[in-house]
Amino acid sequence: MSTHTNYDQGLLSPLWVDSAAARLSSDRSIVQAMLTVESEWMGVLAANGLADPAFIAVVEEAANADLYDLDQIARDAQGGGNPLIPTLGQLRRRVAETSPAAAARIHAAATSQDIVDTALMLVCRDVLTALLDDSAVAAEALAAIAAQHSETIMVARTLGQHSLPTTFGLKAAQWLAGVTAARRALRAALAMLPLQWGGAAGTVAALTELAGDSAQLLTDELAAALGLASPIAPWQVSRSPIMTVAAALAEAVAAFGKIGNDVALMTRPELGELSEPLAEGRGVSSAMPQKQNPVLSVILRSAAIAAPGALGQVFSASSSFSDERPDGGWHAEWSPLRELLRFAGGAGSVTRELVSGLVVRPDRMLANLALSGPLVLSERIVAVLVPVLTAAGISGASAQVKTLISDSRAEGNLAELLRDAFPSEIVSAELLADLLDPANYLGQARELVARIVADSRTA
Amino acid sequence: MSTHTNYDQGLLSPLWVDSAAARLSSDRSIVQAMLTVESEWMGVLAANGLADPAFIAVVEEAANADLYDLDQIARDAQGGGNPLIPTLGQLRRRVAETSPAAAARIHAAATSQDIVDTALMLVCRDVLTALLDDSAVAAEALAAIAAQHSETIMVARTLGQHSLPTTFGLKAAQWLAGVTAARRALRAALAMLPLQWGGAAGTVAALTELAGDSAQLLTDELAAALGLASPIAPWQVSRSPIMTVAAALAEAVAAFGKIGNDVALMTRPELGELSEPLAEGRGVSSAMPQKQNPVLSVILRSAAIAAPGALGQVFSASSSFSDERPDGGWHAEWSPLRELLRFAGGAGSVTRELVSGLVVRPDRMLANLALSGPLVLSERIVAVLVPVLTAAGISGASAQVKTLISDSRAEGNLAELLRDAFPSEIVSAELLADLLDPANYLGQARELVARIVADSRTA
Amino acid sequence: MSTHTNYDQGLLSPLWVDSAAARLSSDRSIVQAMLTVESEWMGVLAANGLADPAFIAVVEEAANADLYDLDQIARDAQGGGNPLIPTLGQLRRRVAETSPAAAARIHAAATSQDIVDTALMLVCRDVLTALLDDSAVAAEALAAIAAQHSETIMVARTLGQHSLPTTFGLKAAQWLAGVTAARRALRAALAMLPLQWGGAAGTVAALTELAGDSAQLLTDELAAALGLASPIAPWQVSRSPIMTVAAALAEAVAAFGKIGNDVALMTRPELGELSEPLAEGRGVSSAMPQKQNPVLSVILRSAAIAAPGALGQVFSASSSFSDERPDGGWHAEWSPLRELLRFAGGAGSVTRELVSGLVVRPDRMLANLALSGPLVLSERIVAVLVPVLTAAGISGASAQVKTLISDSRAEGNLAELLRDAFPSEIVSAELLADLLDPANYLGQARELVARIVADSRTA
Amino acid sequence: MSTHTNYDQGLLSPLWVDSAAARLSSDRSIVQAMLTVESEWMGVLAANGLADPAFIAVVEEAANADLYDLDQIARDAQGGGNPLIPTLGQLRRRVAETSPAAAARIHAAATSQDIVDTALMLVCRDVLTALLDDSAVAAEALAAIAAQHSETIMVARTLGQHSLPTTFGLKAAQWLAGVTAARRALRAALAMLPLQWGGAAGTVAALTELAGDSAQLLTDELAAALGLASPIAPWQVSRSPIMTVAAALAEAVAAFGKIGNDVALMTRPELGELSEPLAEGRGVSSAMPQKQNPVLSVILRSAAIAAPGALGQVFSASSSFSDERPDGGWHAEWSPLRELLRFAGGAGSVTRELVSGLVVRPDRMLANLALSGPLVLSERIVAVLVPVLTAAGISGASAQVKTLISDSRAEGNLAELLRDAFPSEIVSAELLADLLDPANYLGQARELVARIVADSRTA
Repeated sequence: MSTHTNYDQGLLSPLWVDSAAARLSSDRSIVQAMLTVESEWMGVLAANGLADPAFIAVVEEAANADLYDLDQIARDAQGGGNPLIPTLGQLRRRVAETSPAAAARIHAAATSQDIVDTALMLVCRDVLTALLDDSAVAAEALAAIAAQHSETIMVARTLGQHSLPTTFGLKAAQWLAGVTAARRALRAALAMLPLQWGGAAGTVAALTELAGDSAQLLTDELAAALGLASPIAPWQVSRSPIMTVAAALAEAVAAFGKIGNDVALMTRPELGELSEPLAEGRGVSSAMPQKQNPVLSVILRSAAIAAPGALGQVFSASSSFSDERPDGGWHAEWSPLRELLRFAGGAGSVTRELVSGLVVRPDRMLANLALSGPLVLSERIVAVLVPVLTAAGISGASAQVKTLISDSRAEGNLAELLRDAFPSEIVSAELLADLLDPANYLGQARELVARIVADSRTA
Repeated sequence: MSTHTNYDQGLLSPLWVDSAAARLSSDRSIVQAMLTVESEWMGVLAANGLADPAFIAVVEEAANADLYDLDQIARDAQGGGNPLIPTLGQLRRRVAETSPAAAARIHAAATSQDIVDTALMLVCRDVLTALLDDSAVAAEALAAIAAQHSETIMVARTLGQHSLPTTFGLKAAQWLAGVTAARRALRAALAMLPLQWGGAAGTVAALTELAGDSAQLLTDELAAALGLASPIAPWQVSRSPIMTVAAALAEAVAAFGKIGNDVALMTRPELGELSEPLAEGRGVSSAMPQKQNPVLSVILRSAAIAAPGALGQVFSASSSFSDERPDGGWHAEWSPLRELLRFAGGAGSVTRELVSGLVVRPDRMLANLALSGPLVLSERIVAVLVPVLTAAGISGASAQVKTLISDSRAEGNLAELLRDAFPSEIVSAELLADLLDPANYLGQARELVARIVADSRTA
Repeated sequence: MSTHTNYDQGLLSPLWVDSAAARLSSDRSIVQAMLTVESEWMGVLAANGLADPAFIAVVEEAANADLYDLDQIARDAQGGGNPLIPTLGQLRRRVAETSPAAAARIHAAATSQDIVDTALMLVCRDVLTALLDDSAVAAEALAAIAAQHSETIMVARTLGQHSLPTTFGLKAAQWLAGVTAARRALRAALAMLPLQWGGAAGTVAALTELAGDSAQLLTDELAAALGLASPIAPWQVSRSPIMTVAAALAEAVAAFGKIGNDVALMTRPELGELSEPLAEGRGVSSAMPQKQNPVLSVILRSAAIAAPGALGQVFSASSSFSDERPDGGWHAEWSPLRELLRFAGGAGSVTRELVSGLVVRPDRMLANLALSGPLVLSERIVAVLVPVLTAAGISGASAQVKTLISDSRAEGNLAELLRDAFPSEIVSAELLADLLDPANYLGQARELVARIVADSRTA
Repeated sequence: MSTHTNYDQGLLSPLWVDSAAARLSSDRSIVQAMLTVESEWMGVLAANGLADPAFIAVVEEAANADLYDLDQIARDAQGGGNPLIPTLGQLRRRVAETSPAAAARIHAAATSQDIVDTALMLVCRDVLTALLDDSAVAAEALAAIAAQHSETIMVARTLGQHSLPTTFGLKAAQWLAGVTAARRALRAALAMLPLQWGGAAGTVAALTELAGDSAQLLTDELAAALGLASPIAPWQVSRSPIMTVAAALAEAVAAFGKIGNDVALMTRPELGELSEPLAEGRGVSSAMPQKQNPVLSVILRSAAIAAPGALGQVFSASSSFSDERPDGGWHAEWSPLRELLRFAGGAGSVTRELVSGLVVRPDRMLANLALSGPLVLSERIVAVLVPVLTAAGISGASAQVKTLISDSRAEGNLAELLRDAFPSEIVSAELLADLLDPANYLGQARELVARIVADSRTA
């Protein structure tokens, strides 16, 4: 059917293939964003008496990516090394059919980098906005899980081994804490996204020739029209905006990846503490009819593995800038920045789906906790029992208790060992029962859940 | 002399070998930071009636890294997989010589990760503070250069080719803009650096056992004592702080690297527009007595090439967290985070030296601009002349002017070509002189310098 | 026109947008490769009596990517987490229209990873083959440049500064040396590309059930049919093939990038030693009619900046494998591996074009060498003159000669300084002329060119 | 004790802190390697009549790193941007005390990069040799495990879920396959490590001046004396050797990391299939007396997370070369190359220890396999039963069997379900027993173990 043999549909990227982020950052969306910048600029020029107001409608009508041969634009981008040049060429030809004078006025005083950088900021704006929406829903779902499971006891694991009791509520709250921090970074990045408007060499020379002292005013108006921040100065070789948004996106992937890492582990049959939400056609295997793969967490994990390299690529590019526009670094920023938009956007959407339908199995959590028996309470047992024993005049209590705990790894019943070792008037059955109940050693788990959830509401 | 055959002195890292950042992040400094955390925690315990006040002085005296066998600590770190365990062992043994009770109280309710993470935050604090100082000096030097050279005309270069005239003042101001943005990111990171205090599993269980409802209060007091922020919750598996500081450091390297990239180019003999400050023994060659190498910009560039990979490593580590402490990712964060501290700290120090003594050659800047003759003004010539000619009834003016500009690439004298092509009553000698003076096509260069410098004062 | 709003045409990747590598690694090509594997497998089954020979033609006819809805396949890939599952579904439905029995036999004993990994190897094979062709042409062009310019004197530059004389022929030969080394690595990778065939868990269980002791034989036959190596064992979790091909591709980008780095520098107006080949529409600027940008070297440089991050991504993925198929790492390999194929393939094609039409300006090379005057010969002057002077009884000759060289940096005429300083019977005019001729200090430049060119013919 | 406050002992790198790789790549070892190159070069010069033979002993005696102030060398390296310049200075001063003539002859015709690059090759040689030794022991241990457990049944896991039965022997063999592939890459890299000898600009000019037509001969002799390959030409800007060795090291880390990834999972209490070898002080926790951490696999995993970034750094550096020595890229290669040597060397040593004492728990493997019951055999059950049933005239057999398998997920007894569903004359008890025995569905596991082990013996 398709004759377009060079197109990528996202076949190798199940994480984001069908996501809003992919749509909002597609080649078409980038062409549209470039056209929008040119069109809004005509509006600003006209509003300031620097273009015939009639040009506005002509350009606006032509500034519709659906009218363009994107394939041709992509191929022609090699000639000038950037996609604006062929886009502008097509736009001018189209407008010139109606109004040669309007065509001649398009792009006045601008340069390729102004349009491409600004268009990328528009695309970042759109993806970040969608991602903030998706992650808000995910955050609410996490807050609900955290609240619902604030008393659901499970074992905490450190270096893969059983550590102490915790709650699944606190684990979910920690996922939320990561998402909240990422959302703050994303929101700050969104608010910072600036217009780039410097002309051929970053001096605003052509615009000054055109508009004199109004150059800055026009720049501010364009930024406002596009919903971007107006920068102190052109940032064509000072790439803080690119690095800031890239780092925020990579942090978001890490936060979503943490959830994927945990869910992938906890859905293993030997743990069985969680299941991913079922959906038609999801998690199927090409060879194994019985298998249910945790596909959502697997693709979240794949993003967490790949995104740091894309972040490194962005910073490698941004760190290589020279002159008033670099001879390579600028071109190297585009793809990895878009890749990060898609990693983060796709991961946000997948996380939203994952946490909105996560199946929690408190029974399996308890069963797994029981595998280590009272060993996961040994920290408390030592801390409580040793002073009691010492106060009762029993010398060497610390070593003795630790030996009993160690013995119980083989013999399996610490309660009995402790009962046999010490007089019941010192170590009462009540004390033992208290010490051996994991629910009594959850520390601030409940309070931390509350704090994290409350904090997430302010992000 | 040395018998310590495994030590690294920084031989392969001329960028930071002798820097404050290297000293403040040395193995010794990290051990000291861990000891400081343990010591301050004893202070907090004692202040809250949870330890004998006499313990404070005992621990404080022992908490001096110079007293320790760092080599042994490093080797023993493999056993538990982290450097706190052997440090704590040595600290306890040393304190136990004076007070076994104090020794037993050290590290109460804490876990390795609490100490290591918090110690790394202290190290970050120290390096960031030094870097903010160095970069403030560099920023002032850049502001002075920008002001001094706000009228020094040079050619702007894009993709390596001559573009338009600009000023060296604006170029220096753009360097400053990068440093300012990085300083804002560093300052935000510094203000955010949080205490990590969660106990074995992030539930604050042991501390709650010890201090009951005061657990959070004690945590806040420890943060205050250490000059760190008190977090909403333990961040042991939610690594936003690590990623935030790493990204700010990498952005700083990029900003310093931009300066290095430009200086390395502009000190090439064929450009000759800048020289690095001379210093005894700097820039020498092992083979070439006559050669003066731009060593400062070369090592800045080497940092700009390497730092993005270290940033990727930090994010790879932080993105791989699982459970309540991961089985690999945590350990993988330490080295690249320190490397970034050193890259940024070293680069800040080198940049300070570079820009404080930079030698500027306005004559060479003018000579290089002249290489392209009036071609760098063609944008303006077209913009101004075509309307004038068209108004005077000359048809096809745009094509004709562009042809003359193009011809002048071979024939070399655009002024004459224009004079010969058009009647002098339309294109006067005054107009031609105006059009061919690069000083008349600097756009907002002066205003942008002022804006960037003013903005830098607020960072 | 286009209604496919999620497609990427390569708009942000001018390096490879229109390249054979892009076409050979497109989503369509990957689907085709998967279909080819399934189809060839049916052939092997039938040839061994395990399928009705009539199935071959039915499946072969259906195994044509042009018949499929790639968009739907891409979207459905999220369900199972990989693109084979929906491709197989569509293939089976299509075949079942003709022959349900054939449809049921497709994919017998195989698993998703077998098909996806093997398909990627086919794509690697095709791109590597094209790249070896392109780079062979580039290598021949470089050999010709090296031969033609083996006596073209220019200045060697180290750390950006003038060092000694060299020849442009040797510089081109060193470019060739890099390409030759990369070609060896690519050829070795091509010869190694293995079939992956392990079944659901890498035990070849289903195939053994089906074919008994012939399992290995069938595997070998499939490898032969596909033109791939037959591996010792399934490599589904032992990713040496992926890492090997990725490293070879990244090395190729580095070799092409070296050429881009040098050409970008040498086309700067202040150096002017090279020009890129002109082509209609190439190197144009959206704002500057007179500007000719070195677009080919700029996009080569952008690949050299970005490819190392993609290599890191591949290794991050390959290093994260666990179990008998990992829960994330496998999925994370696909995109960066394809990106590397495109970086290398695009860079090979661009390099071919660049070096096939490179314009060399020996006059500018000589002029630039002259900028440093005899300073670039000081190494030889010291080496030759000091023994002569010392033999003639002049004490302190070394220091004296070095002082004269140093003085000449300011005064500019070392020949005169030397002539005035020493008796002409010791330092004759002939000796001075010999010492001050850069053609006499080219070392092994000619021999090295010959060695490198000869070596390239064996790669 | 220590007053050297800038030294790193490896505190943050428990993986390699006490390893041969760390020792062999220490600052001291690098200084020693540089001294060795200078010393051997004096030997070659003297052997060819270009230096007084008496110089050999003088330089040899001085070429002992223990005699040098490494700290001073490191600090002074900033001046020239590389460590050779101060090393050479100290060497010359030391030799001049005995023989000023010998001191003047040292480093004749060489340049910094010749010495630094060649010294790094010597360090690579030493670390690779040690790593090949360690990994040979690890490979033998893995071969023994594979043989010993070739019948030890366990469940294969894909995407974390149960797939089919496999053997622990095959899993260990796959670990071995990865190590074998890495060993081949390392051995090829070792054989390739070349001398770098090009003089100030890569033309061998000074040496040609000194030795005339013998220049290449002397170069070959130096390579032989140092045990390095003699290259076709200087590779000072053609960095294939650096990239080749870096990629081999990173592949080795991935192979060791795979083992770490699996062991870390399989030692989780819920799986409990493996334990790490116990050793005094290993695996301890600062807070949890009962905890035994899988420290060896944790630090292997940390290397697998971090090494890809270091590989990216090396390639970023090598890809940025320009001119005849770059202004930044060369300096950026050193640290990440050393880091990779240490990651791989440390991981090889840790893997050797881990696999030499790995504790295997076949009972837990069986128990875990049983968790999925006959579901892991469903692939075979379908493949065998459906033809039998179809042949017996039962229509819809495939759907019916799959439904029973699916039902058994809830009801838990597939054997009974099958027995009840079908006549026993079609589905006999013997057939059912055969179908439900995992030992009957191991495919080529045994053969693959044998093939992989045999192949490893040839590496």
